[in-house]
Amino acid sequence: MTFAHARDGRRSLLLVGTGLIGGSFALAAKANGVFDHVVGLDRSREALDEAQRLGIIDERAETMAGNHDAVCIAVPVGGIAASVRAAAPRAPVVFDVGSVKSAIVEALAPAPANFVPCHPIAGSERQGPAAARADLFDGRLVVLTPVAGTDAAATAAVRAYWEAIGGRVVVDSAAGHDERFAVLSHLPHLVAFAFMEVAGRSGSLEGAGGGFRDFTRIAAADADVWTDILHANAPRVRRYANELIRALQSFADAAHSGGSTLRARIDAAAQIKRTFDETNC
Amino acid sequence: MTFAHARDGRRSLLLVGTGLIGGSFALAAKANGVFDHVVGLDRSREALDEAQRLGIIDERAETMAGNHDAVCIAVPVGGIAASVRAAAPRAPVVFDVGSVKSAIVEALAPAPANFVPCHPIAGSERQGPAAARADLFDGRLVVLTPVAGTDAAATAAVRAYWEAIGGRVVVDSAAGHDERFAVLSHLPHLVAFAFMEVAGRSGSLEGAGGGFRDFTRIAAADADVWTDILHANAPRVRRYANELIRALQSFADAAHSGGSTLRARIDAAAQIKRTFDETNC
Repeated sequence: MTFAHARDGRRSLLLVGTGLIGGSFALAAKANGVFDHVVGLDRSREALDEAQRLGIIDERAETMAGNHDAVCIAVPVGGIAASVRAAAPRAPVVFDVGSVKSAIVEALAPAPANFVPCHPIAGSERQGPAAARADLFDGRLVVLTPVAGTDAAATAAVRAYWEAIGGRVVVDSAAGHDERFAVLSHLPHLVAFAFMEVAGRSGSLEGAGGGFRDFTRIAAADADVWTDILHANAPRVRRYANELIRALQSFADAAHSGGSTLRARIDAAAQIKRTFDETNC
Repeated sequence: MTFAHARDGRRSLLLVGTGLIGGSFALAAKANGVFDHVVGLDRSREALDEAQRLGIIDERAETMAGNHDAVCIAVPVGGIAASVRAAAPRAPVVFDVGSVKSAIVEALAPAPANFVPCHPIAGSERQGPAAARADLFDGRLVVLTPVAGTDAAATAAVRAYWEAIGGRVVVDSAAGHDERFAVLSHLPHLVAFAFMEVAGRSGSLEGAGGGFRDFTRIAAADADVWTDILHANAPRVRRYANELIRALQSFADAAHSGGSTLRARIDAAAQIKRTFDETNC
């Protein structure tokens, strides 16, 4: 697929939010010839400075004005709907990278036809433009959740962007996406945050080993990003948290009793993990 | 420090349990001149075969008979007390590597004077002799929990073994140790197992990202080992699990409300994690 271009002959992307995810998309898109020129917009002047110094953006903007082939909205979930509303009249294609989809689609209803909701499954506890990498999405799943009114050409264009930078695109409903990531991503973050509170209150963390380090890696996540995600998907996250609480209570009972029941449950859990690793790592 | 030696001039270790931890101790001890000769005992013939093939043990035994300078008990926690009772009359120094200490000390009470309870903070979700590495304990904390009746010379000898292979030895009470590792290690394992049950029931794990992979790494742990650990420390694990459950409920409430309270809690949790990483990684 070749990509459409704005009137000066350059294929131009407006990047709204120049952090890890947006910055990585811009680097990858330029490296793979999806866009020739990236204009950055960010409420943080420091982030813009850094993004420009690192070559993530070619130019900075103060507003959304200008001719662009596409707008990538890479701000925390709570700001996405307003940014989409502002961007949709100004460019043929608008897409986001938010980790929650229903709240955005519902806030926009009806969503602009040229807006394609996206969620690339990639990230890091590292943050900001300096953490951006051109290969962040290589081989990674990218979930698109177009709604009934989404323009098919816009969806096709956005699919092509992600595929050009190595993404494996799948399409799901916003609700289906949010249900899946409530348990696979949002609940683990909630648990990691809550666990750090308990561990922090318990005294010194000296002696914690590699298991602790990996189990809590996601607890270092960006507070702005995760405040919005957990709030936007709160009902689903609470439902899975309650399910986990019941599993924890019953596992603690099994630990008290010990023996073959406990062993069978650990073994079954370990087997799910090993199967996952064989398929995904 | 020089190490005592058995009567044939070789410093001999009897290794009871030839898995990851015991095997790594044997490799490290020989590589660093702590012992010249390692005799392996294991209820699994396959593990013995593999340990011998990999050079972890020089010889295999069917019983604890024989002259050895020390006996390392590296079996799951539930079997340690019985192994210590059997080994104590046969060698000047006996030590274990179990992740729980109070249950062992209490089961033995009074513990043999030449038994030094140990817990090296190192491990892996990988298992068995093939996972053993001579550098597993290099730079790692090793907690010794001698009791009032423990022979000071035995404690000094065991401390010297661990220090010779790179361990950073600290001394704690059995209860102090078990309290700390209930929250830093046993609770995370309980959570990872319970979480895998919830995630497994929720449907396909496709799309799970790097956060999920690391959060659940410890869920692949050895079922025999962890059945014994969780059972032996069940009251403390349950107490911390209840504390985590309260934190999860309150965090889910904060997610529902959103805003600055949620943000402040995420930020505080992330800060504890970042401080830990700066100090420990």
